[in-house]
Amino acid sequence: MTSQALDPVLAQVDATLPEALDRLMALLRMPSISTDPAFKDDCDRTADWMVNELQSLGFASEKHATSGHPMVVAQDDTATRGLHVLFYGHYDVQPVDPLDLWHRDPFDPAIDDTPTGKVIRGRGAADDKGQLMTFVEACRAWKAVHGSLPIRVSMFFEGEEESGSPSLVPYMTTHAEALKADLALICDTGMFDPQTPAISTALRGLAKLELTITGPDKDLHSGMYGGAAINPARVMARVLADLHDDSGRITLDGFYDGVPELSNAQRAQWDDLGFDADGFLRGVNLSIPAGEQGRSVLEMVWSRPTCEINGMTAGYTGAGFKTVLPSQAHAKISFRLVGTQDPEAILAAFERHVRARVPADCTIAILEPEGAPATVMPIDHPAFEAARAALSDEWPRPAAFIGCGGSIPIAGYFQTILGMDSLLIGFGRDDDLIHSPNEKYDLESFHKGIRSWVRVLDGLSRV
Amino acid sequence: MTSQALDPVLAQVDATLPEALDRLMALLRMPSISTDPAFKDDCDRTADWMVNELQSLGFASEKHATSGHPMVVAQDDTATRGLHVLFYGHYDVQPVDPLDLWHRDPFDPAIDDTPTGKVIRGRGAADDKGQLMTFVEACRAWKAVHGSLPIRVSMFFEGEEESGSPSLVPYMTTHAEALKADLALICDTGMFDPQTPAISTALRGLAKLELTITGPDKDLHSGMYGGAAINPARVMARVLADLHDDSGRITLDGFYDGVPELSNAQRAQWDDLGFDADGFLRGVNLSIPAGEQGRSVLEMVWSRPTCEINGMTAGYTGAGFKTVLPSQAHAKISFRLVGTQDPEAILAAFERHVRARVPADCTIAILEPEGAPATVMPIDHPAFEAARAALSDEWPRPAAFIGCGGSIPIAGYFQTILGMDSLLIGFGRDDDLIHSPNEKYDLESFHKGIRSWVRVLDGLSRV
Repeated sequence: MTSQALDPVLAQVDATLPEALDRLMALLRMPSISTDPAFKDDCDRTADWMVNELQSLGFASEKHATSGHPMVVAQDDTATRGLHVLFYGHYDVQPVDPLDLWHRDPFDPAIDDTPTGKVIRGRGAADDKGQLMTFVEACRAWKAVHGSLPIRVSMFFEGEEESGSPSLVPYMTTHAEALKADLALICDTGMFDPQTPAISTALRGLAKLELTITGPDKDLHSGMYGGAAINPARVMARVLADLHDDSGRITLDGFYDGVPELSNAQRAQWDDLGFDADGFLRGVNLSIPAGEQGRSVLEMVWSRPTCEINGMTAGYTGAGFKTVLPSQAHAKISFRLVGTQDPEAILAAFERHVRARVPADCTIAILEPEGAPATVMPIDHPAFEAARAALSDEWPRPAAFIGCGGSIPIAGYFQTILGMDSLLIGFGRDDDLIHSPNEKYDLESFHKGIRSWVRVLDGLSRV
Repeated sequence: MTSQALDPVLAQVDATLPEALDRLMALLRMPSISTDPAFKDDCDRTADWMVNELQSLGFASEKHATSGHPMVVAQDDTATRGLHVLFYGHYDVQPVDPLDLWHRDPFDPAIDDTPTGKVIRGRGAADDKGQLMTFVEACRAWKAVHGSLPIRVSMFFEGEEESGSPSLVPYMTTHAEALKADLALICDTGMFDPQTPAISTALRGLAKLELTITGPDKDLHSGMYGGAAINPARVMARVLADLHDDSGRITLDGFYDGVPELSNAQRAQWDDLGFDADGFLRGVNLSIPAGEQGRSVLEMVWSRPTCEINGMTAGYTGAGFKTVLPSQAHAKISFRLVGTQDPEAILAAFERHVRARVPADCTIAILEPEGAPATVMPIDHPAFEAARAALSDEWPRPAAFIGCGGSIPIAGYFQTILGMDSLLIGFGRDDDLIHSPNEKYDLESFHKGIRSWVRVLDGLSRV
């Protein structure tokens, strides 16, 4: 079901693709590396470029200074009814080191022919300039054909996403009323595969900490003390080994409280994706899923919580051998969280787990414990199904609601600070080389991405 | 029971102590740092000094060149019957860095008054020049009084003990016939405590290896792969944790094969020592013995085998946090061995232990496995009891046969290359600061050490 208004907008997108591409190329030529102070003026000029671009579309747009790089905010005033969405993106990019691995100047973008089609090559092509321009160009096409947008649209671009977003939460908190909309649209995610678009509806949360176990008060000679003095590396190994049972489940008390089972509908969608679990593992030279027995690999990375040892060290780790009995052992441990798992409760359960395994004459220190719960979108809200249908109309295969193993903090901030859920839709591919030399964005992602947003705006107008 | 010949020799030792001390001071003034090429000539001159010293005693003594520092060998020809002993020591010393922590020139030795008595201060005072001169001076006193020694004595001094003894095994192998005696005497060990002399009769062996477990073929993002891809740090933790059971026993198949129980006589001797196990652990801020339940702390460090993690590392171990899922985990592991435990069998059992715990899609590498069995002296040989009785006559408390947690390679070489057991007798104390600034040797250790060897030579003459 599509509206009669839609087809001419799609035709406009196709007819004006060269000009849209020129605009993206202009944006890609701006070296807006946010983490390097040498590019501060470039970031500022990029924000100005965005403001002008949005003004040319008839948006009321402004640049707002922060203590870091500026925010760009814009409101369209052509639609006065229907759903109000806030589109989020970022105009800054990653550094380009190591420069000698690039096949061309990262800020002199070009269209490259590749065996799998044409790609736009340059720093920021996929992360996030190409992606955010799919939405801007979709709005341009709507306005060019109809003079207005089908729903109310605001936009919000930051310039610090690649440098930790230090100004983001303070700015959102201060400007909460101005930013608030019915729903956020976030574009820096990817397709499930080149034929299958995706809406990321479950983003795992994260709890993490550093653990130090101290045994003897100095490093000892293992000949003189070995056997009598406790080795904290042995205690640490016990603490870490006992975090999982033989079936791959995490053993902390109450760890699975708040972990939801997949709905039948969701499970059916995921089964339909035809995910190549063997190929996914084979790509990193593995073959045996390491998570809970009886769960699919997709569940393991999208909808099940995890516990990982991100780092551990004790004693002598250099070349050769020293028969030291170390004084301390250290580990960095993180948990990916789903559903309504409570990070604080899990950090507390972890501490109890440690204390139950550490001899009374050892001491423990838990450093920098931090946690953020999972972000779960309400897929029963009609906007989600409308967007999924719109995406399915554009691409060879139906769109899916998928999980996301990593965290996208902005989606959490929108929920906690602005009380607003997010539609996470993007057209990146796994091989886009974001953060790496020779970053690219498929021309198809750009073209069909614009057409996708045209359809999503249309679909949301009927929610 | 002592011989009538003994008393005048002890009196001679007491009467000539000042001259003996002068000779030791002359030896201590020679900077024979074997590891530093700048002191090569000093090492050579020290060997010459030793040769001259032994010739002045009527020993036939020679300096033998090696590819490193020379060996000094000497035979007395005044005794033609009875036990033949080979006395071993080393004339080289440790470097003196950090020099600014010394309270005086390390090679300008002096007698210092301390709250616990007079000490000889200088590099090499305890390790090993002071110790080896106790034996040389004992021989001098015997010869001065009786014109001959009560048993046949050879001496063997190396100059590379503090730099890994690279020439030792080749030299011993080539000169096996010349060096072979009935029993070796080795002097670089210590007293049990300042009142209690000791003969070290059980030296633990050592087996060691480095283990690498590889999971994915590169470091992964724990958000993208966590849960599905095996984390080798988790596997390593399981491998290491399972090396001990809850009672502190080591779980490897057959690990305790060849581990002897203490004899009742040996246990009674150790009980009599009044070892302060609580104080030993309290000294490193611990209070709970970490070894096998039901064993004393002395057993744990002297007569029981151990397994220690000497080092482990995986993933990100720097400041801050990275949510990496590491490709590899590494550990350095060693076993202290006793009795007739077989290092090869234990390394093989370890490998089976690892393979039983590593998923089929991970790989393992065991690097630089090496092992040497324990060295156990035949304390039922009459020489051991004779030496023990002789030492007991000199000191406030009876001498004990004790274990030694670390390894003394020369004792193993004497067994394997020359087929000769060793009496390990020394008069060092725990606070001698060997290898450290302000090394010292108690004047009492020197004086009563000479008297002790006088008695031991006498005792051995009646074996």
